[in-house]
Amino acid sequence: MGIVLGANHYGKAETRVFRIERDTDRHTVRDLNVSTSLAGDFSAAHVAGDQGAVLPTDTQKNTVFAFARDVGMGEIEEFALRLARHFVTDVEPVTRADVRIEEFGWERIADHDHGFRRTGPEVRTTEVVVDADGSHVVSGVRDLVVLKSTGSEFAGFLVDGFTTLPETHDRVLATSLTARWTHADGTADPGSDHWAASYAAVRRTLLERFVEVHSLALQQSLWEMGRAVLEARPELESIELVAPNIHHVTVDLSPFGLDNPGEVFHVTDRPYGLIEVVVERDGD
Amino acid sequence: MGIVLGANHYGKAETRVFRIERDTDRHTVRDLNVSTSLAGDFSAAHVAGDQGAVLPTDTQKNTVFAFARDVGMGEIEEFALRLARHFVTDVEPVTRADVRIEEFGWERIADHDHGFRRTGPEVRTTEVVVDADGSHVVSGVRDLVVLKSTGSEFAGFLVDGFTTLPETHDRVLATSLTARWTHADGTADPGSDHWAASYAAVRRTLLERFVEVHSLALQQSLWEMGRAVLEARPELESIELVAPNIHHVTVDLSPFGLDNPGEVFHVTDRPYGLIEVVVERDGD
Amino acid sequence: MGIVLGANHYGKAETRVFRIERDTDRHTVRDLNVSTSLAGDFSAAHVAGDQGAVLPTDTQKNTVFAFARDVGMGEIEEFALRLARHFVTDVEPVTRADVRIEEFGWERIADHDHGFRRTGPEVRTTEVVVDADGSHVVSGVRDLVVLKSTGSEFAGFLVDGFTTLPETHDRVLATSLTARWTHADGTADPGSDHWAASYAAVRRTLLERFVEVHSLALQQSLWEMGRAVLEARPELESIELVAPNIHHVTVDLSPFGLDNPGEVFHVTDRPYGLIEVVVERDGD
Amino acid sequence: MGIVLGANHYGKAETRVFRIERDTDRHTVRDLNVSTSLAGDFSAAHVAGDQGAVLPTDTQKNTVFAFARDVGMGEIEEFALRLARHFVTDVEPVTRADVRIEEFGWERIADHDHGFRRTGPEVRTTEVVVDADGSHVVSGVRDLVVLKSTGSEFAGFLVDGFTTLPETHDRVLATSLTARWTHADGTADPGSDHWAASYAAVRRTLLERFVEVHSLALQQSLWEMGRAVLEARPELESIELVAPNIHHVTVDLSPFGLDNPGEVFHVTDRPYGLIEVVVERDGD
Repeated sequence: MGIVLGANHYGKAETRVFRIERDTDRHTVRDLNVSTSLAGDFSAAHVAGDQGAVLPTDTQKNTVFAFARDVGMGEIEEFALRLARHFVTDVEPVTRADVRIEEFGWERIADHDHGFRRTGPEVRTTEVVVDADGSHVVSGVRDLVVLKSTGSEFAGFLVDGFTTLPETHDRVLATSLTARWTHADGTADPGSDHWAASYAAVRRTLLERFVEVHSLALQQSLWEMGRAVLEARPELESIELVAPNIHHVTVDLSPFGLDNPGEVFHVTDRPYGLIEVVVERDGD
Repeated sequence: MGIVLGANHYGKAETRVFRIERDTDRHTVRDLNVSTSLAGDFSAAHVAGDQGAVLPTDTQKNTVFAFARDVGMGEIEEFALRLARHFVTDVEPVTRADVRIEEFGWERIADHDHGFRRTGPEVRTTEVVVDADGSHVVSGVRDLVVLKSTGSEFAGFLVDGFTTLPETHDRVLATSLTARWTHADGTADPGSDHWAASYAAVRRTLLERFVEVHSLALQQSLWEMGRAVLEARPELESIELVAPNIHHVTVDLSPFGLDNPGEVFHVTDRPYGLIEVVVERDGD
Repeated sequence: MGIVLGANHYGKAETRVFRIERDTDRHTVRDLNVSTSLAGDFSAAHVAGDQGAVLPTDTQKNTVFAFARDVGMGEIEEFALRLARHFVTDVEPVTRADVRIEEFGWERIADHDHGFRRTGPEVRTTEVVVDADGSHVVSGVRDLVVLKSTGSEFAGFLVDGFTTLPETHDRVLATSLTARWTHADGTADPGSDHWAASYAAVRRTLLERFVEVHSLALQQSLWEMGRAVLEARPELESIELVAPNIHHVTVDLSPFGLDNPGEVFHVTDRPYGLIEVVVERDGD
Repeated sequence: MGIVLGANHYGKAETRVFRIERDTDRHTVRDLNVSTSLAGDFSAAHVAGDQGAVLPTDTQKNTVFAFARDVGMGEIEEFALRLARHFVTDVEPVTRADVRIEEFGWERIADHDHGFRRTGPEVRTTEVVVDADGSHVVSGVRDLVVLKSTGSEFAGFLVDGFTTLPETHDRVLATSLTARWTHADGTADPGSDHWAASYAAVRRTLLERFVEVHSLALQQSLWEMGRAVLEARPELESIELVAPNIHHVTVDLSPFGLDNPGEVFHVTDRPYGLIEVVVERDGD
């Protein structure tokens, strides 16, 4: 039984590109972190050290900068699609390109024409894959930190010999949400307005459902958030939610003669609950 | 010449305390990171291992949680003052207490009563020192990330045999600002409204002057920002500004037949310029 | 077309457990970061908020601590297997358990019985999955930072209109390696000696092949490293290598009248090449 | 009362320079992170925007690279002294230069001539200040993570109304030590052998005393460590030790019918005790 090369890909990670649109005195700015990764038949590069089919990762970086200049970026999904299609179409050995982009937010300071302040901590994301089957677009957000100060319970859970957790009917629910939603047909590019509107609507739905749902568990909140997104956005076929449970532990103040009616909490770092769930359309 | 104990202090760093004000259904939340450090005559603890004068750091943590409960926090300057005065007044061996607090921002989601979203990346800070001389209050902000897409130059600088940097009359100016301003009289506590108004005004002045000043160097921007703060706020005696220069390097696109009229930049991580400056009142 | 729950799992991430073996005065210490994740039919927890089938993540944490006490850990693969089998066997709703462990290294200070120093930066890892098909064990290492100061080339690569990189026949090759190797039959537990010997041999082979191979590309080095591991260790069926290319850029010192014959380099942070490759046995 | 410029300095932080000594086939490598900061009369740069006296931070970076080439680095104290003296001597407006260097460790893989592995997590450090008073050299180490699995107590401490901590006569003592020691006369440069021997001796003394001292408190351990360093090294006038107390909390396993005789611990992240102490010679 021989030893062979399995799945492999390579690329340039975290090219930090900043773009100013300065057609008028009122500038707009875009701040991206772009990672590209290419697959194809690169066996000679591995087995024989022959790099003849390998487009350098340095070239991939150059391509990101050049593409940022000559057309304009559009939304990150469009920019990723353009880059991924270029690699698959124009670079002969490449059969699959995976482009991931993070976008950092900026807002104007005092409505100034060219003065800006970073917003956050949330980051908008996309991952686009182009291969022989077409284009596949996932949009997302990470580090969307949300919290409910009430309206959250955790009770009626399974108990075994290692269970000491008391039930609670009023707790703090907090998470730093990562969400990724898959567009049903990524082959066409519906244009900037679509991508922008789709992103804004999903983000708004996630936030609103998080606060509105009376939560019997983080799992339930995530399900309701994901379901609402798919109900509202027919262009999406599924959504994945990854949610660390940022534990807020009620501090026992009784040794100091004080009660603590859900007012003072210790926020812990580790360990943390971690809930991961996909919500999708039936028949997928 | 003998060997002796020099300056020493000890405390509990980074107690993460979360506070819900729930007097009505419309909650407010406060999210703090509190560090306390005590000084006094603790030589026996070091030299003889005698801990009789040492209040455990665990107790300092407990005190933070208890104080968060029984009175209410007020602004972070007030909370730090209360804690620091307690340690100096009520704990006999302590002659000096240094309390540092970071406050993380939250805003309501869709004006909801108990649903919140973390803002950032900026963090509000304070450091309060109480000793025999009274109280000393420093307020501040860190990770206030700001950028101008034009209106910044760097030219006419000193040139030596190691200088290769070209002059520029239009560059991106960006920094992640840390600022700390000292209150002239920290002994009195002017109350929550004062601290809140002072912080808001300083932050607004820093942002506005950053964007308004046509910058001939980051040093000049910082000076103008600091000067404007002291002019606007008579309660302050000095301000310290620490500003890494987040370099945005214009990408040379000429190898690809493209110009780059100040539109596409590479954001670098390291190394970075680092400017540190104090602006103060004459006679200090 | 309805909306349904898709893949989901949940658990407790990053339980930091420290274990002292103190049967004799010569202690040994173990320092682990354990993450557990469970899958099964948890649809009621999501859709109806019914937690009756959900073992709390807090219980999972307790289980880690309890298991660390009563038997002894053995190698991390054994400890992960024990935990994963417990969850699948003893917790009725659980059909699949995924346990990941990181182990931080410590070495004795001056051969002392109970004094230790952390080593690093490398971290030993394992991931064990237990489900109806049996047990699946992956061992690994991360943050194994290695460098060759010569014996590395990159030339003869594909050139397109965005390529500016010059060829080089002598460069620095450096990476922070993450490697994960899959054991062919994870169902049996061959015991501590086997796991320890297997890990030590794979790590040694990775290091030795990295330095011995005259590298025509990082891809080639990784292939040769992976191939050598599989040749040497029949118990393994595949190995995955993830290798960021930590770029060491030769500094142009000619403006200062100095040559630079491969002696002075600037180490850059971002962007970085990222190579990912699987080496496996034929017929898998 | 006017507003004036106070203390100010500026420089280039974190220039990552890697150096290969390749006089023979048996290479040696050096991996540094260099930060420079200059002071002088830079009021015109701030107040008037006149950069005529300002040596760009880019030039400071170039100087680091050039100096790495032309002479050879020697120990980091020597390299920092050369850089700092250059800025004060050769750059007219500069009256004070502060150079900080971190050195990352590498060791040979299998005694190979040009293959290396990063060691850690500890990092060797220096800070050199040159001004009109001469040269001031501080050497140090950071992230030296050490642990005692027994031989540590904490009892007999001060108790107030907020104290709940039980006494212990056997606990785990762990810290990630930062130490900085000041050389009595930094003006002369005693040469590479001296710096290397001094560093090695201080590091060894710190480690050995940490494990040998039966600790009644972290404060006591630090005092004994610092005192031993000054006793052993007459060239040093003081040493500062900064030591976070990495808490290892004994897990209560009694709910699971298990005892825990000092064997299983939970390692917590925050909050943490933080002890800072200077040990110095009498009369300083």
